[in-house]
Amino acid sequence: QGILERLDAGEIVIGDGGFVFALEKRGYVKAGPWTPEATVEHPEAVRQLHREFLRAGSSVLQTFTFYASEDKLENRGNYVAEKISCQKVNEAACDIAREVANEGDALVAGGVSQTPSYLSCKDKTEVKAAFRKQLDVFMKKNVDFLIAEYFEHVEEAVWAVEVLKESGKPVAATMCIGPEGDMHGVPPGQCAVQLVKAGASIVGVNCHFDPDTCLETVRLMKEGLQAAKLKAHLMSQPLAFHTPDCGKQGFIDLPEFPFGLEPRIVTRWDVQKYARKAYDLGIRYIGGCCGFEPYHIRAIAEELGPERGFLPEASEKHGSWGDSLSMHTKPWVRARARKEYWENLKPASGRPYCPSMSKPDGWGVTKGARELMQQKEATSEQQLKELFQKKKF
Amino acid sequence: QGILERLDAGEIVIGDGGFVFALEKRGYVKAGPWTPEATVEHPEAVRQLHREFLRAGSSVLQTFTFYASEDKLENRGNYVAEKISCQKVNEAACDIAREVANEGDALVAGGVSQTPSYLSCKDKTEVKAAFRKQLDVFMKKNVDFLIAEYFEHVEEAVWAVEVLKESGKPVAATMCIGPEGDMHGVPPGQCAVQLVKAGASIVGVNCHFDPDTCLETVRLMKEGLQAAKLKAHLMSQPLAFHTPDCGKQGFIDLPEFPFGLEPRIVTRWDVQKYARKAYDLGIRYIGGCCGFEPYHIRAIAEELGPERGFLPEASEKHGSWGDSLSMHTKPWVRARARKEYWENLKPASGRPYCPSMSKPDGWGVTKGARELMQQKEATSEQQLKELFQKKKF
Amino acid sequence: QGILERLDAGEIVIGDGGFVFALEKRGYVKAGPWTPEATVEHPEAVRQLHREFLRAGSSVLQTFTFYASEDKLENRGNYVAEKISCQKVNEAACDIAREVANEGDALVAGGVSQTPSYLSCKDKTEVKAAFRKQLDVFMKKNVDFLIAEYFEHVEEAVWAVEVLKESGKPVAATMCIGPEGDMHGVPPGQCAVQLVKAGASIVGVNCHFDPDTCLETVRLMKEGLQAAKLKAHLMSQPLAFHTPDCGKQGFIDLPEFPFGLEPRIVTRWDVQKYARKAYDLGIRYIGGCCGFEPYHIRAIAEELGPERGFLPEASEKHGSWGDSLSMHTKPWVRARARKEYWENLKPASGRPYCPSMSKPDGWGVTKGARELMQQKEATSEQQLKELFQKKKF
Amino acid sequence: QGILERLDAGEIVIGDGGFVFALEKRGYVKAGPWTPEATVEHPEAVRQLHREFLRAGSSVLQTFTFYASEDKLENRGNYVAEKISCQKVNEAACDIAREVANEGDALVAGGVSQTPSYLSCKDKTEVKAAFRKQLDVFMKKNVDFLIAEYFEHVEEAVWAVEVLKESGKPVAATMCIGPEGDMHGVPPGQCAVQLVKAGASIVGVNCHFDPDTCLETVRLMKEGLQAAKLKAHLMSQPLAFHTPDCGKQGFIDLPEFPFGLEPRIVTRWDVQKYARKAYDLGIRYIGGCCGFEPYHIRAIAEELGPERGFLPEASEKHGSWGDSLSMHTKPWVRARARKEYWENLKPASGRPYCPSMSKPDGWGVTKGARELMQQKEATSEQQLKELFQKKKF
Repeated sequence: QGILERLDAGEIVIGDGGFVFALEKRGYVKAGPWTPEATVEHPEAVRQLHREFLRAGSSVLQTFTFYASEDKLENRGNYVAEKISCQKVNEAACDIAREVANEGDALVAGGVSQTPSYLSCKDKTEVKAAFRKQLDVFMKKNVDFLIAEYFEHVEEAVWAVEVLKESGKPVAATMCIGPEGDMHGVPPGQCAVQLVKAGASIVGVNCHFDPDTCLETVRLMKEGLQAAKLKAHLMSQPLAFHTPDCGKQGFIDLPEFPFGLEPRIVTRWDVQKYARKAYDLGIRYIGGCCGFEPYHIRAIAEELGPERGFLPEASEKHGSWGDSLSMHTKPWVRARARKEYWENLKPASGRPYCPSMSKPDGWGVTKGARELMQQKEATSEQQLKELFQKKKF
Repeated sequence: QGILERLDAGEIVIGDGGFVFALEKRGYVKAGPWTPEATVEHPEAVRQLHREFLRAGSSVLQTFTFYASEDKLENRGNYVAEKISCQKVNEAACDIAREVANEGDALVAGGVSQTPSYLSCKDKTEVKAAFRKQLDVFMKKNVDFLIAEYFEHVEEAVWAVEVLKESGKPVAATMCIGPEGDMHGVPPGQCAVQLVKAGASIVGVNCHFDPDTCLETVRLMKEGLQAAKLKAHLMSQPLAFHTPDCGKQGFIDLPEFPFGLEPRIVTRWDVQKYARKAYDLGIRYIGGCCGFEPYHIRAIAEELGPERGFLPEASEKHGSWGDSLSMHTKPWVRARARKEYWENLKPASGRPYCPSMSKPDGWGVTKGARELMQQKEATSEQQLKELFQKKKF
Repeated sequence: QGILERLDAGEIVIGDGGFVFALEKRGYVKAGPWTPEATVEHPEAVRQLHREFLRAGSSVLQTFTFYASEDKLENRGNYVAEKISCQKVNEAACDIAREVANEGDALVAGGVSQTPSYLSCKDKTEVKAAFRKQLDVFMKKNVDFLIAEYFEHVEEAVWAVEVLKESGKPVAATMCIGPEGDMHGVPPGQCAVQLVKAGASIVGVNCHFDPDTCLETVRLMKEGLQAAKLKAHLMSQPLAFHTPDCGKQGFIDLPEFPFGLEPRIVTRWDVQKYARKAYDLGIRYIGGCCGFEPYHIRAIAEELGPERGFLPEASEKHGSWGDSLSMHTKPWVRARARKEYWENLKPASGRPYCPSMSKPDGWGVTKGARELMQQKEATSEQQLKELFQKKKF
Repeated sequence: QGILERLDAGEIVIGDGGFVFALEKRGYVKAGPWTPEATVEHPEAVRQLHREFLRAGSSVLQTFTFYASEDKLENRGNYVAEKISCQKVNEAACDIAREVANEGDALVAGGVSQTPSYLSCKDKTEVKAAFRKQLDVFMKKNVDFLIAEYFEHVEEAVWAVEVLKESGKPVAATMCIGPEGDMHGVPPGQCAVQLVKAGASIVGVNCHFDPDTCLETVRLMKEGLQAAKLKAHLMSQPLAFHTPDCGKQGFIDLPEFPFGLEPRIVTRWDVQKYARKAYDLGIRYIGGCCGFEPYHIRAIAEELGPERGFLPEASEKHGSWGDSLSMHTKPWVRARARKEYWENLKPASGRPYCPSMSKPDGWGVTKGARELMQQKEATSEQQLKELFQKKKF
């Protein structure tokens, strides 16, 4: 059964987690470029991660084609492009995902994401050509459906959906935006409306913000669709990091990004709360993005086990709400084998010299100022203020 | 070259990270029992983790035989023992480790750890028999050397060393104790002396405490050995969690153990500081335990790259001190591509409702009281105090 | 010169600080009733506090008549009313304030605040009668102007202004509301408009929230007035506690209220930032409420010293930005004698087991639920939920 | 009855709080010099503070003669010495304390503290002369007993005790040291022994550290006296700030000293715990130092009310354990009117961008290095390290 048949039947579809962060920690992806050449260089590592997500309960395996457009591979990953072509990376990604999907009952989704072309030139034809190049591979490899994900500008996301719809396959679209909307100020509700009108059957958000913030954004999308009398399935794939202190551009601007995010990692219990809240909000495609490891996906599958009627395979190695601790020799550890304990725990950081919140870089800086900062290479607010005063912005 | 040849020549030996925690998150180990039946059930997952550590710079691959003594498998993992024999688990562990070690230049170490037999009956013959059973497999599979690790009582650790020494192979011994010493109150210095006298060529600590605490314990061991005019190589394999608030029994007693430890996870930069401090203290076998993921091990190898003269393979996907960020489009993210930035960052938890420190369970409770608590099933301090007053301990 | 002459001339008027909290710590006011019988019982303590505020720079001394309406004294302070009449309390308050004001160049303001009558019966005539009783004393003692302060409902505040305007004296009106508006949902902008239309020449907020939140509320009031093309002077007298975690009803609902607020107390440097922000926003009557001690008021006067052209008397015992530390024997303490140091300091709490934020009581509870809670004596959310479900609210 | 009669009879003697910090906030003392010229300049402010402590339960009123030795007034307070003589300051202090003491049943204690003479020249005769000058005033004004307080070096404290003993009056001696001992490394136990041998009848600590740390230091003093078979009454007057992160020299070295200490202020409930712990340790002279406001002293008197048989006058304005809140209109605030609530509250700081602990200035710096830093005017660790390397310390 295809993705729409499942969702239309009221089934809960569980997404997978974040490949670039997980594989960076495992040694196969470089932070900064974040490109997926590992599909060719180290297929066994990619295959193993797919397998872990499948085992954890993922109903969908996304091809590891994040940032695999040709312009991106050349732009950020030029150390890669000489050796490995864009086509090879995408083909290998499809093959590996399909191989593992066949070991279970999962669907394969081919994914495209925002392009450097859009940011630099904004020429619709050129940007669409980049998406079409990836789509050609997805069609050849016959993926089950398509996802346009990680878009900061709804205009580009719409272009991506338009290209993907040419295939005739179902299309999902998720933006990496928060409740304040896209980078041009289009609010989430309007973004959703535009994406559905362009042909997306499933809309929502992924990346950039923590579960609570993402759910608020999807709620606004839902409201926008209702107001416009449009129907679509809802989807959410947030970060597995707590980010209440993010500004509009999300976790990229947090000083801890990307190498000091550890104290923000969500627990499996945080994920269970997220899964429940997402379900209650009417979202039926529930997964994760950067930071989501297999055990986080398992937590979604366990929380929604009653509704789905089954547990994932990996639950054979996991007691519900910590009940495997009931075998422990110390009574005070056995006392932790219950839901109330983990639900109410406020975990300490063990870091008494660290604050609980950060000030994002560029905090309080206006849009004009940030653009200037980007042009002029200012790397501190102080420098920025000086530039700013000279230019009388 | 064997482990002692390497250490005697002044080489830095890098250990691997923690299998039970990493594989729990990947879905192959059950928290509570923590037993390694995955070597038989899911060898590909164990193999992949070994590979990642090798790639990250590990000079030694430890067989995944933690808690694989027969009594343990029966005791905690009885759901396993019916299907899979102790022998099979240990043999498979050796085969997998050797297969991956051969892909690089790593040694294979067979490991034994503390037994339930010791805790329940303390019969020397019986406890030694358990170790010998595992040793038989290690000899048949011809591991390169042996490690007695994760011992809370030096008496049992000494018995383990005595058994392992029968093999004629080099023996390392690490205890999971802090600066206060073993569970019977033997201080670290004396523990080290007893282990070396029993035949260990390498001594140190693993697990239970964070890097700083472990290094303080090894420092005390070093002092003890110097006072006794004994020579041994030093070894440390700490947790990858910040635990300044631990009591004598380490992280087990923290309320976050084992499912809420996320905010305590150390960053790669914390690990670089640890590696430097360990090196400066004269430790030459430097690795990690629970929580150490491949990227943490890579951080050891990168910090000590200048001393070793080479970087690990996985560094092809990692810029030193974040320099891969110099390709980023935002200037304020590019500004993070430098050592001073990451060295001085105080990472926020994103958890404003959580404290930075915890009160370990059983905090302030005397030894007599804790034993009573263990016998009498008291799971709270309140219950304990009541029991305590009745018994007039 | 009267208050309006001063403000019309562009002068900065500095208010005083919080009497009930300061005198509670000094031993003369009871938390809970919070009534000002100290004016009769211990006039020397009230006089001394007035003197300290005058010395710190206050341009206005408010009579200590908070909660001194007859119905309040009977209701909360019945232990008082038997011995000391409402009239005596108010008269003594006027006499003491005038005596100290004459020692400098300060004005005396008579103040009324919200009444239990309004909350219980809402009869306009009766509520107005309570205000008129206090006003009679203020007229007899000839205060310089009048303040209606600490109102949660704009309706009652308007009644108060109407009564006070009967006197012919200038009237200021401040509400204890945040950006969400009054307890009936009237937004700050509309509150301001109604108060000015009722006759207030000065409007703003006092109490219940921290400086940042109060300034945001006054900003909304200013917008409301501009939209309505009304003119009034702006006033702000916030808490001296950090309360980013407050709900709509302010610090009363924080679990720390009123006996555990210490870690939230603002520093003198926080106050300097507040004074500058208030000034930049166009506020010219700048003071404080609960928690503001004399040294906090001095900080306002010092920050705005350049604009005012003089420093308060108490500055003879205070170096600007800590410069008195330049006499210290330790060089690292001397290094603290500068603005940048104190401006950028992030002060630690010394409380590693405490979180940085609290969940207000009744958090997330709807208005209907809170009312039920109030009627039904539910003291926990759990109890509330049970009641709630039975009633099907 | 004199101080020794009271203590010998088993009475609990309650000290007063910190004058320099309280009067700095009220506008009468300058931070940095910290000298008590207010006794002459603003006697009404000093008198009022004495009255508040008396009312809060203080059994002893200390003359406000801290840092009132002639050399200190000249050294730090030279802006004072021209106008006001050392003798006048000390005489006025005695007169005010006596006047207020007579309003109740309190004793007057004359106090001396460490001198700049000792630090600069260490000439015994000269240092003793400074103490004698103050003692002359105390004898003329006939104080009830004498306190040598705030000494960092036991040698100077012994000299002070020797001088004070010449008077024939009882002498108490408290040092501002922590468990690590005095600045020359003399441990607390030995300090206590030397002070008692010099003639002190009461020994203990004051200032520099929080209640818990001070109690640990007194415990060590008690052990030292017991080992030496000496008898003395014990006394403790700690800071009202949480300082778990202090180094050997106490809160002076914390980056928040003295203008950013607010988030560290202890609550009245912290003080009740301190009073109980002090009592259980056998301390019978229990008071406070910097940061202790009247309500903190009242908390000591209330906690030990059952043992003493009476409450202080100020308790008429304070319900035990918050019971005055039982009159509140909101049920969730009424629910705070109980001991368990306040005892277990972990108060939030409302400061999510601030850490819970600080790194003291000069942290980790050796004694030689700190001395160099002091001589050479280094104000940062960096500068210090450079100096240090040049000098090859």
